[in-house]
Amino acid sequence: MIKNKSNYNKYKFIEKNFYNLRNQICSEFENIENSLSYSSNNNSNIGKFKKKAWKRKPDKGFSSGGGGVMSLMYGRVFEKVGVNISTVMGSFSEEMKNKIPGAKFNPNFYATGISLVAHMHSPLIPAAHFNTRFIRTTKNWFGGGADLTPTYLNKSKSISNFFHKNLKKTCDDYNPKYYPEYKKWCDEYFYLPHRKEKRGLGGIFFDYLEDDFDKDYEFVKDIGQTFLRTYSKIISDKINLSWTNKQKKDQLIKRGRYVEFNLLYDRGTAFGLKTEGNIDAIFMSLPPQVSWK
Amino acid sequence: MIKNKSNYNKYKFIEKNFYNLRNQICSEFENIENSLSYSSNNNSNIGKFKKKAWKRKPDKGFSSGGGGVMSLMYGRVFEKVGVNISTVMGSFSEEMKNKIPGAKFNPNFYATGISLVAHMHSPLIPAAHFNTRFIRTTKNWFGGGADLTPTYLNKSKSISNFFHKNLKKTCDDYNPKYYPEYKKWCDEYFYLPHRKEKRGLGGIFFDYLEDDFDKDYEFVKDIGQTFLRTYSKIISDKINLSWTNKQKKDQLIKRGRYVEFNLLYDRGTAFGLKTEGNIDAIFMSLPPQVSWK
Repeated sequence: MIKNKSNYNKYKFIEKNFYNLRNQICSEFENIENSLSYSSNNNSNIGKFKKKAWKRKPDKGFSSGGGGVMSLMYGRVFEKVGVNISTVMGSFSEEMKNKIPGAKFNPNFYATGISLVAHMHSPLIPAAHFNTRFIRTTKNWFGGGADLTPTYLNKSKSISNFFHKNLKKTCDDYNPKYYPEYKKWCDEYFYLPHRKEKRGLGGIFFDYLEDDFDKDYEFVKDIGQTFLRTYSKIISDKINLSWTNKQKKDQLIKRGRYVEFNLLYDRGTAFGLKTEGNIDAIFMSLPPQVSWK
Repeated sequence: MIKNKSNYNKYKFIEKNFYNLRNQICSEFENIENSLSYSSNNNSNIGKFKKKAWKRKPDKGFSSGGGGVMSLMYGRVFEKVGVNISTVMGSFSEEMKNKIPGAKFNPNFYATGISLVAHMHSPLIPAAHFNTRFIRTTKNWFGGGADLTPTYLNKSKSISNFFHKNLKKTCDDYNPKYYPEYKKWCDEYFYLPHRKEKRGLGGIFFDYLEDDFDKDYEFVKDIGQTFLRTYSKIISDKINLSWTNKQKKDQLIKRGRYVEFNLLYDRGTAFGLKTEGNIDAIFMSLPPQVSWK
């Protein structure tokens, strides 16, 4: 139970880890921007991340508030990539406290996390979503996930195999039950019922993970490294391929599905809007260019 | 109360009116496409409406089903404009029947309507939304509305005055209480709470109108004519003005707000998705090109 502010300090090392991961991701992605040798499709400039801090409006909760830092890059490989770290604390509303584990009789919460969304210039490189978080009410748990959204699902077999193989390996190192369960959760979650379509090629999605704090923490750290390594590899493999106008158009239409999912179904978006989060941070995931037919 | 199919025939003239209005709108908008004398901003071809019929999957309700016809045009003035007419009938689900007037003890319904959304190439011409409908449960009522979404709200004073003046005049011909009430309803409805922003410059929005069937029907017909006449005039006034890249970019960002509204808050979208309506018809309103920063 969160009794006083000093209790938060106990978990500062988790925030620190997300901070370091953010720096590592930004540095790796900037290297990728630099590494593009030639692009026939693109005349944008080499991207560099820009940071923007935001503060959360305190609610009535004890020592409430917090905030975060958004890092955004618009480049020549990454059309738009955002990496957000945030640490927020406060007291859930009546509506929320019945929905969040461990908040029913004590609505105080503390949450720290990192989230990333990348939309690529190339329609041959999937968009990526990655997120890990630690939430504390009267319970403590980790959650997160990683998944990819290619323009053409039926032509992404090898990317999908590679991505899933790596996620499975990391999951298996901790518990052989994780991968099948988290893969299924991801498939069920990233689904557009109105179109009867999957959002992408899947990945993993997990929440309420409280098996063993130390092990869970290591798992979450490892998932971050696995995501970064595999996605960087997927980008590097396709970075110098050119694409057609038709492929670019198809990508913009596919991004429409992404927007539909995020605004109609995404729990994070709904959570953010309901808790009056930072609008720019909540909508960081929305693509820079989208089309609907 | 809807007892048998012949009862529907009693209201065929309303469907016929929406059908005629659709034809009139399409013909007028095609004339506008032809009338563009010169455009420095645009190399699209002259647009022509294409029709696409769709059928609604019957539910368990008596003589249920129905369908509609979408008319879509991609042109050089109209970047994308859709006019949809539909007539659907069936039986509301348990969830819906408690929400819809007159459906609680008899869930049968019949609904006929027309809806229009126009997204213009020129960022100097507002996007338009117009809709009128007749709904029959154990009650009969009309609903509808018309509103405009300019790129720059603070620079649209004269368009706004002209549009509102004409709507007010038509409303006043029927009941001086209509305009103030329907304008307020429109302002409250087309609002994005998460951004604390209006969607556009407003207009009118009305529902559950059952003052006097014959008068209500004339009012709804008149609103259709007023919308078509005023919007066509607004287009014609701005049709030959050129615009900057910056203005076009701002328009695409503004369209993002439009998408946010439609997916997060619009009742019609939610109604369509919940009653398994035609996805293309429901999402006809979504802009052809959109940006988020």
